[in-house]
Amino acid sequence: MDLWYSENHTENVKFSLRIKEHLFSDKSDFQRIDILKTYEYGNLMTLDGLVMVTEKDEFVYHDMIVHPSMAINPDIKNVLVIGGGDGGTVRELMKYPSIEHVDMVEIDRMVVEASRKYFPAISCELDNEKVTVLYEDGIKFVKDKEDVYDLILIDSTDPIGPGEGLFTTEFYNDCYRALKENGILVNQNETPIYDNFFEVGISSNIKLKKMFPIVKAYQASIPTYPGGYWLFNFASKKYDPINDLKADRWNSLELRTKYYNTELHKGAFALPNYVKEKFENGNV
Amino acid sequence: MDLWYSENHTENVKFSLRIKEHLFSDKSDFQRIDILKTYEYGNLMTLDGLVMVTEKDEFVYHDMIVHPSMAINPDIKNVLVIGGGDGGTVRELMKYPSIEHVDMVEIDRMVVEASRKYFPAISCELDNEKVTVLYEDGIKFVKDKEDVYDLILIDSTDPIGPGEGLFTTEFYNDCYRALKENGILVNQNETPIYDNFFEVGISSNIKLKKMFPIVKAYQASIPTYPGGYWLFNFASKKYDPINDLKADRWNSLELRTKYYNTELHKGAFALPNYVKEKFENGNV
Repeated sequence: MDLWYSENHTENVKFSLRIKEHLFSDKSDFQRIDILKTYEYGNLMTLDGLVMVTEKDEFVYHDMIVHPSMAINPDIKNVLVIGGGDGGTVRELMKYPSIEHVDMVEIDRMVVEASRKYFPAISCELDNEKVTVLYEDGIKFVKDKEDVYDLILIDSTDPIGPGEGLFTTEFYNDCYRALKENGILVNQNETPIYDNFFEVGISSNIKLKKMFPIVKAYQASIPTYPGGYWLFNFASKKYDPINDLKADRWNSLELRTKYYNTELHKGAFALPNYVKEKFENGNV
Repeated sequence: MDLWYSENHTENVKFSLRIKEHLFSDKSDFQRIDILKTYEYGNLMTLDGLVMVTEKDEFVYHDMIVHPSMAINPDIKNVLVIGGGDGGTVRELMKYPSIEHVDMVEIDRMVVEASRKYFPAISCELDNEKVTVLYEDGIKFVKDKEDVYDLILIDSTDPIGPGEGLFTTEFYNDCYRALKENGILVNQNETPIYDNFFEVGISSNIKLKKMFPIVKAYQASIPTYPGGYWLFNFASKKYDPINDLKADRWNSLELRTKYYNTELHKGAFALPNYVKEKFENGNV
């Protein structure tokens, strides 16, 4: 049987993967979850029909949501992950002996259970004793936190469905308060290639700039995400992402990373002119 | 009518664009040429069914095949473009008053004619008096050239059909001889995302290293190319792409570029670990 999965990146652009087997499909209280075995990208998880993670290229996203901040402040000890139910972000964080504790707040238990079963190489550190997995709404979770975390990683879906409240000024304010005085926040910030995505990315960047003194976007090449090109926001109370990079110290840790390195770190913050201009103009 | 164009990036991955109108289709002596009007990417040219250029994202490829070398050696005067029939590479070269002459050797006159008609904003400098367009086989053209060019840009298709001979050691040797003692060669070097492409890219890189003392790959995010992520080889007799970057001098020219800038220049050469390792290992 010639079985294909397709994602519409816009109503006029479609990305399709040939499928060996539809391994899992269920509806949680929050979203529809599917696991597909692809020929090219290994196992694939979709939420409400959109690509979240594949075995072949997940390393790009997970390297880039975690390692830049850890190389800027190697003294990070206490981390909050909002979302991140597949476990890849936690896996990368657990490479650092200096990290003492991670709270991972994932609203959807079924995402974690599916990842444990179908993505063992991604979810492998969720039982680490340094990690607490909480099945709660991240928006409510941060409301009463103050001066607790060195780093908050917002590893969310796009702002439709359960991810919607994770792109608001109110939520960012709560995160700001939950961070210590040296705190860093990183969120996934969509693709600049398609306007429907980048409107969200620009709006998120503008909201973060209202409270954080340092907000810089950075980029990575993720082939299964729309445009093959994805942005993150780095928002920081104190550290500059380039001037405060501790390259020698990070390299002395001798971590094995498949995407990230400290030269690429600097390159990731060097955006193309058209992306810089859209951020500066505040619209697509 | 719901009309879609699809390109198979591998037999298991497909990229599709919704089409307003099929503007042109013909078979030249070398390949099939189609022009499609897309909703998302403006006009699109395919050769033998594969995406070559779109109005929306052509600026990435054309910026990146031209400007890095020009920022490394601002004294480039005489340039050879092999292929490049759409005219975008010549358009970027014509931004430099210091360039005295460009030979563009395109085997397929029909590509140039189609670009003149359907891509006026790309082909707009082909009649510049500094440019000679030759409808010849680039492989034969370079055979008897010696010490002529400061820069050779191989703006080719993939190594199937007329592009095949542009990935051989013999051709690279002829290019090396055609270059002056400070000469630079750049070629498009495929995507590292899919093995069928990257085998070609690695092989090209290895062949160039046999003759050029400095060969470094660099990257760009091109959403309509396979993987959304494309590589170029920078091969040079004398100049190092980072140490010899003349950022201040390039910026003093005040050129308008939509993708390239001198910070991104350095970032483009900072490859992810998995790409560096594959180049070092010499296989995918």
